[in-house]
Amino acid sequence: MAFNIPAEVGMPVAEVDTPCLLVDMDALDRNIAALADFARSHDVRLRPHAKSHKSPDIAARQFDHGAVGLCCQTVSEAEAMVAGGARDVLVSNEVVAPRMIGRLAALALKARVLVCVDDASNVTVLEEASAAAGSRIEVLVEIDVGAGRCGIAPGDPACELAHRIADSSHLRFAGLQAYHGPAQHIQDHTARGAAIDNAIALTRDTVDRLAIHGLHCEIVAGAGTGSFDLEAASGLYNELQCGSYIFMDADYAGVRGVDGGALPFEHSLFLQTRVISKTRSGRAVCDAGLKSHSVDSGLPTVFDCDGVRYTGASDEHGQLDDPQDRLALGKTLRLVPGHCDPTVNMHDWLVAYRKDRVVALWPIAARGMSL
Amino acid sequence: MAFNIPAEVGMPVAEVDTPCLLVDMDALDRNIAALADFARSHDVRLRPHAKSHKSPDIAARQFDHGAVGLCCQTVSEAEAMVAGGARDVLVSNEVVAPRMIGRLAALALKARVLVCVDDASNVTVLEEASAAAGSRIEVLVEIDVGAGRCGIAPGDPACELAHRIADSSHLRFAGLQAYHGPAQHIQDHTARGAAIDNAIALTRDTVDRLAIHGLHCEIVAGAGTGSFDLEAASGLYNELQCGSYIFMDADYAGVRGVDGGALPFEHSLFLQTRVISKTRSGRAVCDAGLKSHSVDSGLPTVFDCDGVRYTGASDEHGQLDDPQDRLALGKTLRLVPGHCDPTVNMHDWLVAYRKDRVVALWPIAARGMSL
Repeated sequence: MAFNIPAEVGMPVAEVDTPCLLVDMDALDRNIAALADFARSHDVRLRPHAKSHKSPDIAARQFDHGAVGLCCQTVSEAEAMVAGGARDVLVSNEVVAPRMIGRLAALALKARVLVCVDDASNVTVLEEASAAAGSRIEVLVEIDVGAGRCGIAPGDPACELAHRIADSSHLRFAGLQAYHGPAQHIQDHTARGAAIDNAIALTRDTVDRLAIHGLHCEIVAGAGTGSFDLEAASGLYNELQCGSYIFMDADYAGVRGVDGGALPFEHSLFLQTRVISKTRSGRAVCDAGLKSHSVDSGLPTVFDCDGVRYTGASDEHGQLDDPQDRLALGKTLRLVPGHCDPTVNMHDWLVAYRKDRVVALWPIAARGMSL
Repeated sequence: MAFNIPAEVGMPVAEVDTPCLLVDMDALDRNIAALADFARSHDVRLRPHAKSHKSPDIAARQFDHGAVGLCCQTVSEAEAMVAGGARDVLVSNEVVAPRMIGRLAALALKARVLVCVDDASNVTVLEEASAAAGSRIEVLVEIDVGAGRCGIAPGDPACELAHRIADSSHLRFAGLQAYHGPAQHIQDHTARGAAIDNAIALTRDTVDRLAIHGLHCEIVAGAGTGSFDLEAASGLYNELQCGSYIFMDADYAGVRGVDGGALPFEHSLFLQTRVISKTRSGRAVCDAGLKSHSVDSGLPTVFDCDGVRYTGASDEHGQLDDPQDRLALGKTLRLVPGHCDPTVNMHDWLVAYRKDRVVALWPIAARGMSL
């Protein structure tokens, strides 16, 4: 809403209204370039996940660095990203509601649209909707490679479903979705590698069986910010779907790379907050609570104020341990959110800055697009 | 956004797009009437908290039942509620950022505006902003009655701050804010009573000291859905600030009343979700995840499908235990959110229904109004 824009271009970052999401554009640009360079040098395509940023402005920067398209997680998110300029969108999820399938088929008149399925009855409804809309939806069979969430069993069940798609005149079988979500957050690289190795083996077996039946997988897709190096090295996966790498949250900061060090990305997303009460020694209260960041993966870390810790959240308040009483009333500080995706989904604006000045305001166009 | 309206008036509730917030209007009306009747019979005013619903439509129903005004938790939330028709709004929180204080002073030209303070320097800034705007902000001294969040110490420190306000020509001292947030969620009524008794004693002492100094508290405010009966019985508090009572979430369902039974309110808010994957016996996956409900106070409960349990959330997915395999692909079910306030803040619409038909769509006008 017009009266809730948290900043103006040119203003000092410390004066931006709070609570507010800030994006360090230099760090963001380095993150985008780092994964783009990796993908190029490993001869895999990059289809970043828009569920992390929900921002056409950030998507445009990813396209500028060679991204072939976007992943989205819902139809309404895909609509928002197409409205913002995307021409090739994979809904990396099942779409089951009839009204939303209708919207998906309509969207396929405006952009290349792909979707995942794990059930034959869903193929029938997609087929009818595409026929009615006069569009063609491309379809990936989602296989469960260990995540235990969506996805049909790899191997023969997946092949049978792929045939069902390939036999449809209004759909196109485009390959496999083989993403292992929980593995992304396994901190130890070796343990994470074991989970992904298993995912790769299951995927390879399915790809091979499909080939025997004459079905080629144009797309073998998966991988996230925690595991992309492993899928890229497989020689099997050809599209990476990383999302969080652009921002890096506190949870991913604990995920170790191959050498035991950090992942090759920097924190670029911060929640700026302000001290709104300082009535006790050793403690302070800020304005960042459960309505401005998600605590599902742990509390945020304090980025720019040594010795201060964020210790608890209520709806509109955060508790800060301030043992040295460094926090005066009104002081702003920056938090690294515990989990970037659901945090971004609470905000309408990303305030982009370089050094200490606001340089752009980016609408989070797909905020709340959960349908 | 126009393309993301989840329902149409008249449609069957089960066909509403998911994930989506539903409001059972019969239950909502009973909740609103129950607390309004209680307040009237106990001779206390009711100023419900809009942070729970963020909806001018629900506020209007509260006004129709005698609410004297609203509480809001932020300036932008107050702006949205005034834009939606409220004429008397208390920001039951400290406002420290200079730009937001300016907006608060401007809002006081359109409606009666009250705000809380717990620091003398904040009084000075409020005074200057009121003078500049040509408005008059009414001010409550917030005292810490055991919550350990915002608030100056009760007794003499609070009296000193009250004098500072009363001496200002552009502010008006209106009384005390004495809310004990954590006590609301103490499940046992006796233990909760002990915490509130202490809060009442601290507040009474402060009111008495203020009276000795000739300062009258027009408003002595506090109380929430868990404790309102205790503050109302005190003979001291004269404004109740309950918010969650209109919806009742899964957390409040565990809070016991005076007789060990449930609080006198019903669940009226539900998150409708849909099964989007059913590939395994005993389990299913639905479309309600961390972007459509908040898990900070625990997972949601399943309202209308016996034997099914919600066991885990990722960003756009929920895991369901379905031991009897009752959940077919596409089936909708209703969840009672673990915590209503941050859940409502993720959505743009409340879909109001009676029996099994949609009767209204209410915009969550203050959604995301965290500044």
